[in-house]
Amino acid sequence: MFHSIVSAQEPMMGILIATGDRSSTLCSFQRNNRKGTNMSKWMQEWSTEAVGPHKLKIAERKVPEIGERDVLVRTTAVSLNYRDKLILESGMGLELTFPFVPASDMSGVVDAVGKGVTGFKPGDRVISTFAPGWLDGLRPGNGRTPAYDTLGGVHPGLLSEYVAFPEDWFVPAPKSLDAAEASTLPCAGLTAWFALIEKGQLKPGDRVVVQGTGGVALFGLQIAKAAGAEVIVTSSSREKLEKALALGADHGINRLSEDWVERVYALTDDHGADHILEIAGGAALGQSLKAVAPDGRISVIGVLEGFEVSGPVAPLLLKSPVLQGISVGHRRALEDLVDAVDRLHLKPVIDRRYKFTEAREALAHLDRGPFGKVVIEF
Amino acid sequence: MFHSIVSAQEPMMGILIATGDRSSTLCSFQRNNRKGTNMSKWMQEWSTEAVGPHKLKIAERKVPEIGERDVLVRTTAVSLNYRDKLILESGMGLELTFPFVPASDMSGVVDAVGKGVTGFKPGDRVISTFAPGWLDGLRPGNGRTPAYDTLGGVHPGLLSEYVAFPEDWFVPAPKSLDAAEASTLPCAGLTAWFALIEKGQLKPGDRVVVQGTGGVALFGLQIAKAAGAEVIVTSSSREKLEKALALGADHGINRLSEDWVERVYALTDDHGADHILEIAGGAALGQSLKAVAPDGRISVIGVLEGFEVSGPVAPLLLKSPVLQGISVGHRRALEDLVDAVDRLHLKPVIDRRYKFTEAREALAHLDRGPFGKVVIEF
Amino acid sequence: MFHSIVSAQEPMMGILIATGDRSSTLCSFQRNNRKGTNMSKWMQEWSTEAVGPHKLKIAERKVPEIGERDVLVRTTAVSLNYRDKLILESGMGLELTFPFVPASDMSGVVDAVGKGVTGFKPGDRVISTFAPGWLDGLRPGNGRTPAYDTLGGVHPGLLSEYVAFPEDWFVPAPKSLDAAEASTLPCAGLTAWFALIEKGQLKPGDRVVVQGTGGVALFGLQIAKAAGAEVIVTSSSREKLEKALALGADHGINRLSEDWVERVYALTDDHGADHILEIAGGAALGQSLKAVAPDGRISVIGVLEGFEVSGPVAPLLLKSPVLQGISVGHRRALEDLVDAVDRLHLKPVIDRRYKFTEAREALAHLDRGPFGKVVIEF
Amino acid sequence: MFHSIVSAQEPMMGILIATGDRSSTLCSFQRNNRKGTNMSKWMQEWSTEAVGPHKLKIAERKVPEIGERDVLVRTTAVSLNYRDKLILESGMGLELTFPFVPASDMSGVVDAVGKGVTGFKPGDRVISTFAPGWLDGLRPGNGRTPAYDTLGGVHPGLLSEYVAFPEDWFVPAPKSLDAAEASTLPCAGLTAWFALIEKGQLKPGDRVVVQGTGGVALFGLQIAKAAGAEVIVTSSSREKLEKALALGADHGINRLSEDWVERVYALTDDHGADHILEIAGGAALGQSLKAVAPDGRISVIGVLEGFEVSGPVAPLLLKSPVLQGISVGHRRALEDLVDAVDRLHLKPVIDRRYKFTEAREALAHLDRGPFGKVVIEF
Repeated sequence: MFHSIVSAQEPMMGILIATGDRSSTLCSFQRNNRKGTNMSKWMQEWSTEAVGPHKLKIAERKVPEIGERDVLVRTTAVSLNYRDKLILESGMGLELTFPFVPASDMSGVVDAVGKGVTGFKPGDRVISTFAPGWLDGLRPGNGRTPAYDTLGGVHPGLLSEYVAFPEDWFVPAPKSLDAAEASTLPCAGLTAWFALIEKGQLKPGDRVVVQGTGGVALFGLQIAKAAGAEVIVTSSSREKLEKALALGADHGINRLSEDWVERVYALTDDHGADHILEIAGGAALGQSLKAVAPDGRISVIGVLEGFEVSGPVAPLLLKSPVLQGISVGHRRALEDLVDAVDRLHLKPVIDRRYKFTEAREALAHLDRGPFGKVVIEF
Repeated sequence: MFHSIVSAQEPMMGILIATGDRSSTLCSFQRNNRKGTNMSKWMQEWSTEAVGPHKLKIAERKVPEIGERDVLVRTTAVSLNYRDKLILESGMGLELTFPFVPASDMSGVVDAVGKGVTGFKPGDRVISTFAPGWLDGLRPGNGRTPAYDTLGGVHPGLLSEYVAFPEDWFVPAPKSLDAAEASTLPCAGLTAWFALIEKGQLKPGDRVVVQGTGGVALFGLQIAKAAGAEVIVTSSSREKLEKALALGADHGINRLSEDWVERVYALTDDHGADHILEIAGGAALGQSLKAVAPDGRISVIGVLEGFEVSGPVAPLLLKSPVLQGISVGHRRALEDLVDAVDRLHLKPVIDRRYKFTEAREALAHLDRGPFGKVVIEF
Repeated sequence: MFHSIVSAQEPMMGILIATGDRSSTLCSFQRNNRKGTNMSKWMQEWSTEAVGPHKLKIAERKVPEIGERDVLVRTTAVSLNYRDKLILESGMGLELTFPFVPASDMSGVVDAVGKGVTGFKPGDRVISTFAPGWLDGLRPGNGRTPAYDTLGGVHPGLLSEYVAFPEDWFVPAPKSLDAAEASTLPCAGLTAWFALIEKGQLKPGDRVVVQGTGGVALFGLQIAKAAGAEVIVTSSSREKLEKALALGADHGINRLSEDWVERVYALTDDHGADHILEIAGGAALGQSLKAVAPDGRISVIGVLEGFEVSGPVAPLLLKSPVLQGISVGHRRALEDLVDAVDRLHLKPVIDRRYKFTEAREALAHLDRGPFGKVVIEF
Repeated sequence: MFHSIVSAQEPMMGILIATGDRSSTLCSFQRNNRKGTNMSKWMQEWSTEAVGPHKLKIAERKVPEIGERDVLVRTTAVSLNYRDKLILESGMGLELTFPFVPASDMSGVVDAVGKGVTGFKPGDRVISTFAPGWLDGLRPGNGRTPAYDTLGGVHPGLLSEYVAFPEDWFVPAPKSLDAAEASTLPCAGLTAWFALIEKGQLKPGDRVVVQGTGGVALFGLQIAKAAGAEVIVTSSSREKLEKALALGADHGINRLSEDWVERVYALTDDHGADHILEIAGGAALGQSLKAVAPDGRISVIGVLEGFEVSGPVAPLLLKSPVLQGISVGHRRALEDLVDAVDRLHLKPVIDRRYKFTEAREALAHLDRGPFGKVVIEF
């Protein structure tokens, strides 16, 4: 996801480098904590001293000290996103602090809490939030400087045995998932949920097109099915389509051998798709504009093909679809997702689990187009 | 508006040529009526026998006969849209019936009603609806074939002394406007209203950017002000900006001499625009994506620059604006607009009024970028 | 449902007697058709010459003639609502036309179509719409005179071998249901759908309380489960609760032996219900106000206990729930429900099927609190 | 407002006494701060040692100490609500801490900030938030225990020369208002805004009925006018109606001499009111249900007549209005209101300004039905 951001031209850089006042303060506040030594305990973490491939290594650090409102969490699993790899390799234009620890999504167990903490106690299972400080409602940031202060970016990452953050940077983990599964919710799970449910208000019987079989896509498939939708998955791999059908997809379209827009018309009696999870981006958006139903919705959740989106204006005007970029979501929606996961017994799809020492292999796996998520277990 | 549609490539043509079953039937039903002769009365109308410039001429026809649910209306004014000119010159890929009468927006006085008509009586002042059959809620059509059966296109046009249509193709005219002013509501007025109010749910204090000073733009300015918004108008003409300020705009930005995105940041303390009425289209959309506030809204209401829209993906993802094409709106929203016009004393801006015999001069005026609307009075 | 309306006091009567201009015209238009004789074919129907119990009898009538936009439908099943019984017994303050044919919900097969009909052809399976003329969007009527022009009320009823109405009074029947099942959608099915989906925008993981096990309640249970909700059913019958659990309810609460509000708190970790389908009404609303979650929703869909609703103001203010009366819904939502039924294989629950000749027994069954619907097959 | 809460019966008490975990911690955290003495500076405040009338007196206290994230604010004005009087006289069932300082709405100037504060600096003009901790989106609390942890209630009040709270308990004051005017926004202003704009999404041309001429009502009048609505004010005082008309109301209805529902029908051509700000409560709600338009909205914002609301079920079902209790709103909406106030030059209506030493006279004024707000200037 967020491929475009790697080598974004100068004007986009401005957008990505900047951070809201409030969050950057939280961040420096946190960085001080990480240098704390009061617990006199040592831990291991993956970090790098500079941007560029092949620099990541395991280092020993003191376990971070916690402030009054902070929670110390022992990491049990970290889920990787393609963005983690891009930041390590290019920096993505973000103002990183070195040594830089990657990764934004984790699950863990509360080890200690500050005296002002009311929501958690030692032993609680938790997961992280991708965009700390965005609790509910409208997103932070402004028109000139959108907020992009995420963990494993402007804020420190999580590929570490212990992390310490303010309590509202965590939510309770779902009871029905193991650590590895739970760690996949903060970014991939929430992105699909935010697009389809929080913003998309999917209803039973809606036709949903999910493009691809990556982490967000498979969450999209599972969440859409849970909401009573009919789900069409597109992929360039027959094998992945078969797995998607086994997961509950109603239809699979092979993008290599079929015109997917025509197939969507055929599968829906020309109605088109009520909702499209658009991942390819670029000029591919034009196909989605053709496939969408009148008054439908296209959620652009990432871009694999270049740094622009483009499409024909006629279907945009005549079908009046809502086109909305989705970058993850707020804390309250993550709580909703956790509740839904437990109640509906949703099982995130993990392509492969790696050990803590195999972080480099896990990152390399991302280039091979995993079916679902790649997770590191601690 | 709808510039792109003129020379749309083949695949788009498919979209524009097609019409929904129901409307095309209404249409042929109507065409038969137009050939009726029971009233034995003659009238004049502008029509053409073929697509191409300079073919429009005044012809004599029998006043149309009305069916059980139809209303015969004596036209008092017709408001022109750029689209009328494009259809006359190129056909816009639509399946027109010849002789073809142009124009989609009118006001008039009910002359006679069919025996099944309950909503109107002779003497009532009425205006037409742009997309007959779309009464409320979701738009007709489907993903493959969006509905585009409008008056002065798939359906007959209105540049005629009398027209006869089913009663729900009309709504009562506003009491506070004269015939020429009232005729501007069905397309230009409703487009702005649908974008800002029905879909945009503008609230007091919102910052709205209106691009240009054409018919839709000036309605956008007036409606946004009526809703308590702060309005920024962009134009390449200093004179038009001054007129827009006189009409109530809070700020004017000269697109030729200023970087309008930077000016929007400056005028809004970097907040950006909560709503942008995007008219230029094409790559200009990229500027709107930069200028929009997080969680803001961009209504694409027409395209002057080519047949594509395109823009950078970073602000689309990070600010998560809603981008929506708007092509006019439904009958119920037109009734809402009429009510609001009367209650708020909104006065549509007419650049120049022409006589019935001056239709060709009026159409030519559209090429000169009118400030507001161009109207033909009968 | 609508129990209160039986002996509504004078001011309510005013509301119920009145009808919108348009619909009443459609209605008289239709009544004339019923007296038509062009088809020279006879049929049987249940009708009554006066309000009052025990007056319903089978009569022979000519099959109705159809107008240009009408569809003649051969009835295959009629589903009963408690309201049908109330109208027969009391008139419910409505201006009925005698001989009066009862019932508002049917399925059938198109027998003939008028020459202006475009949406149906002979042989098509259809179901009726409860509130003809309300196609989409906002409901008709005004503040003084709400619309209540339904079939089997102001409009003629359906307990007849053939009926003829304008084509948009019907929608295509679901392919996956038999005639009896399909006939249950227009009122009971649509009411639950409109409350939970169209207005309620239920999301996966929401907690829904469904009060009772009548027709609307069981549709509520099935639709809420299809949308991924957790469903709690309340009933005063242990046997019915067991059947509801077998149908998919997550929890059953026996209102006789348990404090249902406390049980809802217990089942939801004090969260409360995100949505309550409130059927009992009267002072029972107070219990729903206690059980509802903050920002939750209470849909009042009928009233068994008196003609008033009342409740404490503290939870209304402090939890800020939306309380909304729901009386069926529009045609477009019925089409959505039909689509969802087919795609999700929802099977309406029919307590018992009667023959055409057993209409009186079927009506009597309504007094015994059926589990789901009572249907008459033709 | 919130009259009902005074002598609420036992079950409601439970609701009002309880507070969410998080807020009660913030609260005790704050209480400790108040006892801080590090600034060695003394101030005056109004407080009481026990519930009951006539116990309020001026006391000397140390200026509170601030924590890392806190802001110390020098109070410049406090706006009173009827609720302040009720809490002083009865406790309203809340778990108060003594000495108890009353009042929930203030404006002031930042005097000092903790080292972790990023949003404010000394000299900034600020106003308080009524429900601290509710930043945006869904309200805190749960079904069993709604959140009611407000300033001047569960949290300390503001009738004090200095107060210290976490920074997000304040928002920047509007630039265009003086201290007294600004102090009226946090409760009365926000309640009207939240009902009409945030939840009600008022649009130009809507018909709004505002009941009465108290603080919330006059904000309702001004905000609705700013949003382009037509406003009808009801009152039992001819003099107050004249003042409301002078403020911009379109129509005034004297509740003593006229049937207000019939007048609303007459003024709206039977359409009814699109939005009603319902303040009287009790059985008066029944009148609002009659006056509301189909698909309209009734915001219950307070109750003068008893502890119940009740109304007839027929209009609730047939017109399907949304009925929603509104208790103030979140911080983000308060920021929106502040922006709108500045941009639209809204001037809150203050019936009378009192000096700090006249707090008892100011509270007594509340019983005499002020026209707008009663404010104490420091």
